Amino acid sequence: MFRVPRVMFEPLVRSALLEDLGRGGDLTSDAIVGQDVRGQVAVVARQPGVVAGLDPALMAFHLIDPRLVFDVQHDIGRRVQPGDVIVVVSGPARAMLTAERVALNFLGHLSGVATATASLVEAVRGTRTGIACTRKTTPGMRALEKAAVLSGGGVNHRFGLDDAILIKDNHLAFAGNITEAVRMARDRAGHLVKIEVEVDTLDQLRELLTCEADAVLLDNMTTDQLTEAVGLIDGRMIIEASGRITVETAAAIAATGVDLISVGWLTHSAPVLDFGLDYHG
Amino acid sequence: MFRVPRVMFEPLVRSALLEDLGRGGDLTSDAIVGQDVRGQVAVVARQPGVVAGLDPALMAFHLIDPRLVFDVQHDIGRRVQPGDVIVVVSGPARAMLTAERVALNFLGHLSGVATATASLVEAVRGTRTGIACTRKTTPGMRALEKAAVLSGGGVNHRFGLDDAILIKDNHLAFAGNITEAVRMARDRAGHLVKIEVEVDTLDQLRELLTCEADAVLLDNMTTDQLTEAVGLIDGRMIIEASGRITVETAAAIAATGVDLISVGWLTHSAPVLDFGLDYHG
Amino acid sequence: MFRVPRVMFEPLVRSALLEDLGRGGDLTSDAIVGQDVRGQVAVVARQPGVVAGLDPALMAFHLIDPRLVFDVQHDIGRRVQPGDVIVVVSGPARAMLTAERVALNFLGHLSGVATATASLVEAVRGTRTGIACTRKTTPGMRALEKAAVLSGGGVNHRFGLDDAILIKDNHLAFAGNITEAVRMARDRAGHLVKIEVEVDTLDQLRELLTCEADAVLLDNMTTDQLTEAVGLIDGRMIIEASGRITVETAAAIAATGVDLISVGWLTHSAPVLDFGLDYHG
Amino acid sequence: MFRVPRVMFEPLVRSALLEDLGRGGDLTSDAIVGQDVRGQVAVVARQPGVVAGLDPALMAFHLIDPRLVFDVQHDIGRRVQPGDVIVVVSGPARAMLTAERVALNFLGHLSGVATATASLVEAVRGTRTGIACTRKTTPGMRALEKAAVLSGGGVNHRFGLDDAILIKDNHLAFAGNITEAVRMARDRAGHLVKIEVEVDTLDQLRELLTCEADAVLLDNMTTDQLTEAVGLIDGRMIIEASGRITVETAAAIAATGVDLISVGWLTHSAPVLDFGLDYHG
Amino acid sequence: MFRVPRVMFEPLVRSALLEDLGRGGDLTSDAIVGQDVRGQVAVVARQPGVVAGLDPALMAFHLIDPRLVFDVQHDIGRRVQPGDVIVVVSGPARAMLTAERVALNFLGHLSGVATATASLVEAVRGTRTGIACTRKTTPGMRALEKAAVLSGGGVNHRFGLDDAILIKDNHLAFAGNITEAVRMARDRAGHLVKIEVEVDTLDQLRELLTCEADAVLLDNMTTDQLTEAVGLIDGRMIIEASGRITVETAAAIAATGVDLISVGWLTHSAPVLDFGLDYHG
Amino acid sequence: MFRVPRVMFEPLVRSALLEDLGRGGDLTSDAIVGQDVRGQVAVVARQPGVVAGLDPALMAFHLIDPRLVFDVQHDIGRRVQPGDVIVVVSGPARAMLTAERVALNFLGHLSGVATATASLVEAVRGTRTGIACTRKTTPGMRALEKAAVLSGGGVNHRFGLDDAILIKDNHLAFAGNITEAVRMARDRAGHLVKIEVEVDTLDQLRELLTCEADAVLLDNMTTDQLTEAVGLIDGRMIIEASGRITVETAAAIAATGVDLISVGWLTHSAPVLDFGLDYHG
Repeated sequence: MFRVPRVMFEPLVRSALLEDLGRGGDLTSDAIVGQDVRGQVAVVARQPGVVAGLDPALMAFHLIDPRLVFDVQHDIGRRVQPGDVIVVVSGPARAMLTAERVALNFLGHLSGVATATASLVEAVRGTRTGIACTRKTTPGMRALEKAAVLSGGGVNHRFGLDDAILIKDNHLAFAGNITEAVRMARDRAGHLVKIEVEVDTLDQLRELLTCEADAVLLDNMTTDQLTEAVGLIDGRMIIEASGRITVETAAAIAATGVDLISVGWLTHSAPVLDFGLDYHG
Repeated sequence: MFRVPRVMFEPLVRSALLEDLGRGGDLTSDAIVGQDVRGQVAVVARQPGVVAGLDPALMAFHLIDPRLVFDVQHDIGRRVQPGDVIVVVSGPARAMLTAERVALNFLGHLSGVATATASLVEAVRGTRTGIACTRKTTPGMRALEKAAVLSGGGVNHRFGLDDAILIKDNHLAFAGNITEAVRMARDRAGHLVKIEVEVDTLDQLRELLTCEADAVLLDNMTTDQLTEAVGLIDGRMIIEASGRITVETAAAIAATGVDLISVGWLTHSAPVLDFGLDYHG
Repeated sequence: MFRVPRVMFEPLVRSALLEDLGRGGDLTSDAIVGQDVRGQVAVVARQPGVVAGLDPALMAFHLIDPRLVFDVQHDIGRRVQPGDVIVVVSGPARAMLTAERVALNFLGHLSGVATATASLVEAVRGTRTGIACTRKTTPGMRALEKAAVLSGGGVNHRFGLDDAILIKDNHLAFAGNITEAVRMARDRAGHLVKIEVEVDTLDQLRELLTCEADAVLLDNMTTDQLTEAVGLIDGRMIIEASGRITVETAAAIAATGVDLISVGWLTHSAPVLDFGLDYHG
Repeated sequence: MFRVPRVMFEPLVRSALLEDLGRGGDLTSDAIVGQDVRGQVAVVARQPGVVAGLDPALMAFHLIDPRLVFDVQHDIGRRVQPGDVIVVVSGPARAMLTAERVALNFLGHLSGVATATASLVEAVRGTRTGIACTRKTTPGMRALEKAAVLSGGGVNHRFGLDDAILIKDNHLAFAGNITEAVRMARDRAGHLVKIEVEVDTLDQLRELLTCEADAVLLDNMTTDQLTEAVGLIDGRMIIEASGRITVETAAAIAATGVDLISVGWLTHSAPVLDFGLDYHG
Repeated sequence: MFRVPRVMFEPLVRSALLEDLGRGGDLTSDAIVGQDVRGQVAVVARQPGVVAGLDPALMAFHLIDPRLVFDVQHDIGRRVQPGDVIVVVSGPARAMLTAERVALNFLGHLSGVATATASLVEAVRGTRTGIACTRKTTPGMRALEKAAVLSGGGVNHRFGLDDAILIKDNHLAFAGNITEAVRMARDRAGHLVKIEVEVDTLDQLRELLTCEADAVLLDNMTTDQLTEAVGLIDGRMIIEASGRITVETAAAIAATGVDLISVGWLTHSAPVLDFGLDYHG
Repeated sequence: MFRVPRVMFEPLVRSALLEDLGRGGDLTSDAIVGQDVRGQVAVVARQPGVVAGLDPALMAFHLIDPRLVFDVQHDIGRRVQPGDVIVVVSGPARAMLTAERVALNFLGHLSGVATATASLVEAVRGTRTGIACTRKTTPGMRALEKAAVLSGGGVNHRFGLDDAILIKDNHLAFAGNITEAVRMARDRAGHLVKIEVEVDTLDQLRELLTCEADAVLLDNMTTDQLTEAVGLIDGRMIIEASGRITVETAAAIAATGVDLISVGWLTHSAPVLDFGLDYHG
């Protein structure tokens, strides 16, 4: 299972703590919990889902007090049920309460992404179709959200504008036509950069099949159109389907034989997975 | 209408651009769109909702190319319908395409928060109850999400741990009882800091009514319990209700006479509001 | 005693070290002290006062060399006399000398704030009046200075512009009158935000008493005026007095019955408390 | 007159604004002052002194709203009297009120440093002795405080640990003796690095005179000792005197013939110079 | 010609200025050049080469004084001869002198990279072989160095660890064999991620040809080996050659028919291209 | 041997890792090397030279995985031969592979600087002439490159614009003449700031000898001119020679009796010293 290196998310965890601590720190815990009080709390799932984002969550606790100790019981990628304990945190009590919200914000959001991914992966089980995320991510969280998609069993699309070429309708509006656009892209692309082109119609697809592209994005097509497109392509390009695909429609899309279904809402609209912090004494 | 000062969100917009540009920049637009091409695009709503987050979206375009010019047609707080143009962007074409995704990620997420807020505000229209967000925000985006709630007609709860005291169940677990916890909080609180206490039962509420608290958070109570609680409190404290409240249940909750309904999903689970970038030539 | 979480001051300590180390590091210690030399030094008070800012001071040493070991003898909030040892530092000698100035700059400045606060707290001992700081803080050091005021026995006023509303003369100049200003503020304020209004005259105070404000700031009033104001208010609002209040005048101000005396010079003009680094061998 | 390049203080001004704006921005001005209100305010001296820190103060206003316009009437280095207008600020009213405190915090603190410096410069007028600051600066503000000393007519000592060698008592404690310490320093020092040594006694001075040092720091000596030291040195080294020197004692110290008096409190304990923001309509 | 968006290099230019300005700014120019002096200087090539890095160089001037005006005469990608003027800078004289060194450090280093690239591109002219850089870049400068390679007519290899898979000898040491490594890589790779494998022998190459890889890196092979390898591969994979290739040996390598020659020294060891700043009055 | 304090280079090491990891991390190692695999690798010299930059290299490994353990066999300043092991790294295998490139980029570049320095130091052995670097450094790396020059046996010139005054031809163009320029510089300079002046002719040198300068930079003079200059100066100033000096010409320059030879290419054009990472099992 891929774990994001700490150096990649530490700045965001620090920012998140600072926006919660403000300039006065945790007024409530400082007032109510003595500085020598020690205790134990458990992070517990309140909904069924898949765990992701555990590392930034634990880092939030650790940055508030490095003396806190963690006993992880359900690591990233694990499917959990309501009541399952993700991690038991032991040590100074104030720090647990101070870091709680930031830790759960990471854990809940990223587990929400993983859970949404897993629901789609489950929906297409038995087909050869993968579930991919897009660049429609939350500002500042791309690396973590992309990793959460992996935790949920999905695959990653481009990480950004520089790791692949994806020619979309607005590019074509400025470039004139697909043939010309792909030719220009091929000239610019490094030898390890693949080229994908978005098409909305089968006519566009036919033009694309005469070009040197590696993949095609079939956007907002019906299953009939997709089936015809898969036949036309006949294995010559990787095929990605997109366009408001849901858990309900995914299986039918997958059945058309596309390689990949990409879904923006995995990262931009997945509801949080609910976790709580239970007092253990 | 509150506008977040630029200095507050500029670092996040820069981060979001950098995570999309990576180290190679926008391979696709650089390859396909000549550097002297100029054009015009419109940011268009694809769903009904309320606009928020326009300033960071425009900053994303501006940071890529300060020569881009903006004609805003639906500013923050405005209700829009599918097809409504939010802003027309004119100038160098490459920059529009390069900044598009980051700009729409801000606009879509924050307008989603505003739209969710507005739906709850609408649900309780005619009552005196306000709709508030919580600290369950996306890491790094608290200021922008809090402002989006305002754009949607809601009100803000605490901004963080240092601008009010909110004693929750886990604090009480460590502090022993409400009376003692409020006393300690009162000692610590500055003269402009209010104290709110979360209670789950009417017995807890009765104890709280003997303490010097400014507000009470009634968590996960039925409407019958809430009605009884409102009667018990009789105007002596501000009353906040919370606990998985939806657009469907909000009106009934508001009818109990609570001052405030607070809703975590406004910020952590509101689906994105969909916007697109349309080519104008 | 409130301790500022490390995550809140680490960036400032790093900045302070970098501005001292420049690009060449500590030329003097590197030249004169062998890299294997170990030793022991003591941070010693040279003046009577109250300790604050010890955590950033120790962090400065630690960031230069994590092998340094600390034996704290007078922690924050403790009153010290000349010659009292605050902390003994043992380990690699070069690092002690390199970090010395930055560490003492934090310790001296913040202990100066605590000591000034304590002198005013002492001056009003026996009354019910608290001593508060303001937003007149040193740029970049607000959290640490606010905490130093607590170490000195004082209380904190607003941490910034977003945790309470304070309507001052310039706001009123733009708003027209107190009644209208408070009404607008009440509409905007969240349920945990208190409203305070600055008044210069008893007439203004009388108008304010008809409004929904939580606190009043009586600015630059004589003790006679303050006494009359306290009588007029009669417990209906929290009362803060301000305006060039000194250790000499504080007792008389407190005797008027105000709740709070706020003093800008605690943070902007408190002289440093002098500490030295003594060689122990 | 030296002006600190903007790139050197922009990060600190941004930090200072963010610590004041928090996550909710300026609740008061947003509530009370309409977003289209424009106006004019003047920054006015409330005490006699010397202006410094004007550039970061104006940057604070500018970063909140770049439409604000400034009419500077007393630039840095100028001596002002109570009532003198430093700068008139015109434009959107909210932004003036939002930036006021941060702007005045820079202006007041740095003008305080300049004013303290000027008072000592005045005290030694007619002698050849310069007034220098030390490394006892406020964390994060060294460049600005060093520049404020220049605005007040003083001169700068070392900027940090890497631009000169200064051997102090603790270095000598580890190094054994002056002769050995200076020899090691000379070996390490680049060709543009001067070496200064702190001595407490005339015996130490006599030893130092046999070494290759460029300057001597005579610490805590009486005027008699200083006079004797100046005679012994006889122009062979630059002579700096230090040790709790005040406006009252400076002239007598200068009369001994030392080149330089260095004073820590110029930067660590100078009281703020008071400025206010007056409404002009 | 690709221009790196400003947002990508602004932080580095600011850092570079700060490391030169230190805490005291430009002592020399401040002392010698009056603050109202205006003038004109030209950045002039002292050696033949290709221009790159002009944008960060101009940003260095601009950040010191936004009033400086630039007249660019030889933009990036242009071949220049000794004496050619790159850009004429007009305006406040102090700022020109203050920014000079940082500006020339960017311009010289990056033009050095472009010039080295161009020399290799020239060496293989007439073949179909491209010249690529590697990840052996200067820490912090990858985006700028990669762009400089483009300015010199070269192509970019991977930008980092996340935009393509490149299996090298050390990976194989841990993975066992090529077949297994490629299979694992294929499972992990997103649909737009290409896989390249480094081989040192023709036996390894034969194994690789049975795997699903997109490209092969032939490391340190003789031209005879390369010729044989090109024949074996027969167009089924992209072929990259590497291993201490120089301007003298490049043509022979290219003649073997490889697609790409990759050269670490373009970025890690290219000598600077010399530019000077000439006074124009 | 001077070691740069960690706090000075940690931000750059973090930046370098982030530019390599991007948003997706190390796709290759994550795919191929199991997360529990442990191993041992050695960093081995492939060329003869002098080691520098080891601390940032080890920090790169440590920041990816703090469980990695280092056994340093050739520390900074040591001369190494091909095959010499610099450090053995043991622990989790993935982290070694992920950090490899960034670590070697630091080690190779900085050892290249040290090696170039050592070659010049060797060339002038037996004379009294030192080898100094300049401000022609790589943006962002000045502190590390200056330290690498020390590791190679060289000495440091100015660290930046604020630690010494160096009047060059362009300053003189604006200032009129040497006499006036030195006088103005002397007025501005603090007591620990030395003044050096660049001269191109013996006439300029004769003028300079009538001024209060500490050092002279003889730029681009022949050995005959240098010999004459050394005679003219007769020990009254420190003498620095510069101007395209190579390993071949250095001895003759040194033989003229100059104190210092300064060489820009030590930092801007030294070729990398080649190191590899060898698998140990």
